[in-house]
Amino acid sequence: MTQTQSAATLVRGRYVLTRAEHDGAATLLNDAAVAVAADGSIIEAGSFDDLRSRHAAADVIGDGSHFVLPGLVNAHHHGRGVSYMQLGQPDGALETWLNLAWGRKPMDSYVMGLYTLMQQLRSGTTAVMFNQAGPLSEAEGTLTAFREVGMRTAFSIGFRSQCFLVYGDDDEFLAGLPDDLSQTARAVVEGSRVAFEDNLNLVLDLHERYEKPDPQAVRILLSPSGYHWADEDTLRRIVDTARANNMGIHTHVLETVYQRLYANRTTGQSPVQRLADIGMGGPGVSYAHCVWVTEDDIRILTETGTSVSHNASSNLRLHSGIAPVRAMLDAGVNVGIGTDSVGINDDDDLLQEIGLSQRLHRVPGLDNRHVTPGELLHMATLGGAKALTLDEHIGSLEPGKRADIVMLNWDRVSYPYLDSELDPLEVLVSRARGRDVRTVLIDGRVVYNNGEFPTLNVPAITMRIQEVLQGPPPPEALIRRQAAQALDPHIRAYYRDWQLPDGPQHALRNARA
Amino acid sequence: MTQTQSAATLVRGRYVLTRAEHDGAATLLNDAAVAVAADGSIIEAGSFDDLRSRHAAADVIGDGSHFVLPGLVNAHHHGRGVSYMQLGQPDGALETWLNLAWGRKPMDSYVMGLYTLMQQLRSGTTAVMFNQAGPLSEAEGTLTAFREVGMRTAFSIGFRSQCFLVYGDDDEFLAGLPDDLSQTARAVVEGSRVAFEDNLNLVLDLHERYEKPDPQAVRILLSPSGYHWADEDTLRRIVDTARANNMGIHTHVLETVYQRLYANRTTGQSPVQRLADIGMGGPGVSYAHCVWVTEDDIRILTETGTSVSHNASSNLRLHSGIAPVRAMLDAGVNVGIGTDSVGINDDDDLLQEIGLSQRLHRVPGLDNRHVTPGELLHMATLGGAKALTLDEHIGSLEPGKRADIVMLNWDRVSYPYLDSELDPLEVLVSRARGRDVRTVLIDGRVVYNNGEFPTLNVPAITMRIQEVLQGPPPPEALIRRQAAQALDPHIRAYYRDWQLPDGPQHALRNARA
Repeated sequence: MTQTQSAATLVRGRYVLTRAEHDGAATLLNDAAVAVAADGSIIEAGSFDDLRSRHAAADVIGDGSHFVLPGLVNAHHHGRGVSYMQLGQPDGALETWLNLAWGRKPMDSYVMGLYTLMQQLRSGTTAVMFNQAGPLSEAEGTLTAFREVGMRTAFSIGFRSQCFLVYGDDDEFLAGLPDDLSQTARAVVEGSRVAFEDNLNLVLDLHERYEKPDPQAVRILLSPSGYHWADEDTLRRIVDTARANNMGIHTHVLETVYQRLYANRTTGQSPVQRLADIGMGGPGVSYAHCVWVTEDDIRILTETGTSVSHNASSNLRLHSGIAPVRAMLDAGVNVGIGTDSVGINDDDDLLQEIGLSQRLHRVPGLDNRHVTPGELLHMATLGGAKALTLDEHIGSLEPGKRADIVMLNWDRVSYPYLDSELDPLEVLVSRARGRDVRTVLIDGRVVYNNGEFPTLNVPAITMRIQEVLQGPPPPEALIRRQAAQALDPHIRAYYRDWQLPDGPQHALRNARA
Repeated sequence: MTQTQSAATLVRGRYVLTRAEHDGAATLLNDAAVAVAADGSIIEAGSFDDLRSRHAAADVIGDGSHFVLPGLVNAHHHGRGVSYMQLGQPDGALETWLNLAWGRKPMDSYVMGLYTLMQQLRSGTTAVMFNQAGPLSEAEGTLTAFREVGMRTAFSIGFRSQCFLVYGDDDEFLAGLPDDLSQTARAVVEGSRVAFEDNLNLVLDLHERYEKPDPQAVRILLSPSGYHWADEDTLRRIVDTARANNMGIHTHVLETVYQRLYANRTTGQSPVQRLADIGMGGPGVSYAHCVWVTEDDIRILTETGTSVSHNASSNLRLHSGIAPVRAMLDAGVNVGIGTDSVGINDDDDLLQEIGLSQRLHRVPGLDNRHVTPGELLHMATLGGAKALTLDEHIGSLEPGKRADIVMLNWDRVSYPYLDSELDPLEVLVSRARGRDVRTVLIDGRVVYNNGEFPTLNVPAITMRIQEVLQGPPPPEALIRRQAAQALDPHIRAYYRDWQLPDGPQHALRNARA
């Protein structure tokens, strides 16, 4: 008979959700606990009384009133704890919204990283798919912040080779602009253009320095920003690099109808089909958004085993539509949940995002099924973990996995009364929000507790953020901001004759075509 | 020169929104205040420095950091501070969801009323369209609670004469059920059937006793529960009674596609057209939901001047669809916002509801307009006030109106930084939620401040709620609950051959027909 390893900590709860499956089946224990070893791994989960008797020396966290679940995984994010809106970029349709970032004040990626990760931890997120959109120089600061906060990440740096201003030829588009605007816009494009080798060299270097020493904490992925943002040669080279180095890939696919129309106008082939043909599909690959996928696309996602990040709030805020999540789940596609740094309340509350996703996919018709609480919890844990290529280590509270754990204040969620026959998972998804997160552990260490971050100097971080952001923007930022506003009508004009599909589409809602 | 009346109180803010118009135009003052007379009416709004010098003796509320706006109006609600879900009724499609309430524990309407109104005040709601769905005996307790909390209401008691179980003949439907189930269901129907005269006599009595002494605080409206829930003779008698007594009307219209199909199968005429023909449309009349209205319906709503309550969360949670709010606003229809007691987070946070509505109506297509922040704020203030027939007294912060005022903690909304060029209304709608409400005044009196209700004994109210709800349900409630569950498949079967429209509809979203 083998001796059980002895636990350093027991994380105790009224409910312990150890695992949620793709089909929504879930293992939920009552009056239970998770036994965590001193090295931060999970020994076992089970009845609290039983674990208490067998791990008598362990510290106990929790008085048995909490809902204990795996740390949540944010499957798509660009790192804006101080939100795009706060930085001066109000919502709009993606195609006109992206360039509104031009006039943004420069920001220290390390401090912004710390603040962003605090925001996420506060609502129970312990692992983030972080897709960097800014200059290469930001990566080091961001990854340092992840290491300091102790949060897991699959980190990538989006690479663009084309379509900087519109889906089409940038030079042609620039040629049609008034001279002043054309010059500024060209400067912005040239300023954000990066040589593919520079991106690749940095990413491979980060892979050596950050992933290899601690592959359970950091994954470095490759990332063409999106199907339409990278030429085919680049896409192929990324596939080759990923294969040679056993790396994952994260990219944007079919976020908006205009991205679909662009593919129709160029290759005439669906981006999902094209990516599969190139070899950029598979278990290590994830696509953000997939709002405008067809049934054929969904079949390909299933066949290749590619993951999808569903970003409900972002898709509403940026006028993208509603992704066919029910259809993707039915087809067996692995789906995660992301806030894309534009959650419905302009924070990164992943519990709120789960709750929105629960309600958004309810098509009228008594026999139409919605996405179930168990499915949503799978998406926000194991589903996301798989997209991050971290599902061997996180996403469930099972022996051998890392002890990334969230404790919800269930007394608050069920205040002042809760019918005893309700499914606790349904209640969690419907009523628990970031405000209800009491304690968060990563690797068995408490990183957030009752509003406090024991390892971080929050006032110093916030003060530094404010120092950087307050005061007037530099003159060149002002010029760029004005140029971005001037560009807006030209972008609208560019797309005006792109005929939107008028049949019933997955992503069309209350439009009367 | 007339002497200005002297103010008892100045409510001060960094921003003061005095009025939002139907078209979204808004009057927003900076570093301003609202001068409130001792009788709780507004004297004027203007620059704080100016008001301070002219009302030197007034108490000042606020240090100049808050966002001050008119008290919010919840335009559709059934009074469930302890939510339907908490009481044991998980979400579902309306037609199967309604009967899940059968097994509910009996509740003291006065205590439930107090708790419900606390929930609403907490997130800045100062007036509620309260449509009672329970037995007549509940009215007195509810109205007593309103008076005690000091909250405004347009109160009505929904009346049903038909379609208790399905949209169709209840006797026929009962005859097709297994005997046991049929008996229980019949008992429930008979138990909830009320003689029209009893409803009418009570409503007229409440009108005398509650509205007449204080018509600025209480309106008593007439209410057929819905177009399909009342026979035509009843509808006509309600119209006559409303005219004779100068009373408003509130009812449910086209909440779900099945309600539209029922009308198609019976009169063949649109419910909106039919109600207009009967005379149940006009400035004193409001329809809740209107998810499945057509362009013709919208034109009739405009012509009659009928108000609509938009309930975005409810329409998602109960599988109803997304209402064509943009189209209704464009046509000039007056629209309010309601939580219907089923807000997206299962609370009654009207600021959250505004934020959801802001994001939900963003149809893909660069030139498609969404609902603007000013329009949303009109809906949640003056638009709702008009639906409640209280717009002469509330809905804006203007001379002569009642001082119903909300103060938001703007430092929190804009923490840690906010770009100075952003439209404050856009920021409010995007980022301010119930948690940001600092102080609420009704009639110039502080009724909520920093988490406290100065005039209410919150622990006693909560304890009483818990006493009533804890403990096992009475045996007859258990039997009814089981019957409701048994009924579910029969209801689904009843509607199964009702063909859903398959063209692009206002309310169809990510369905692929």
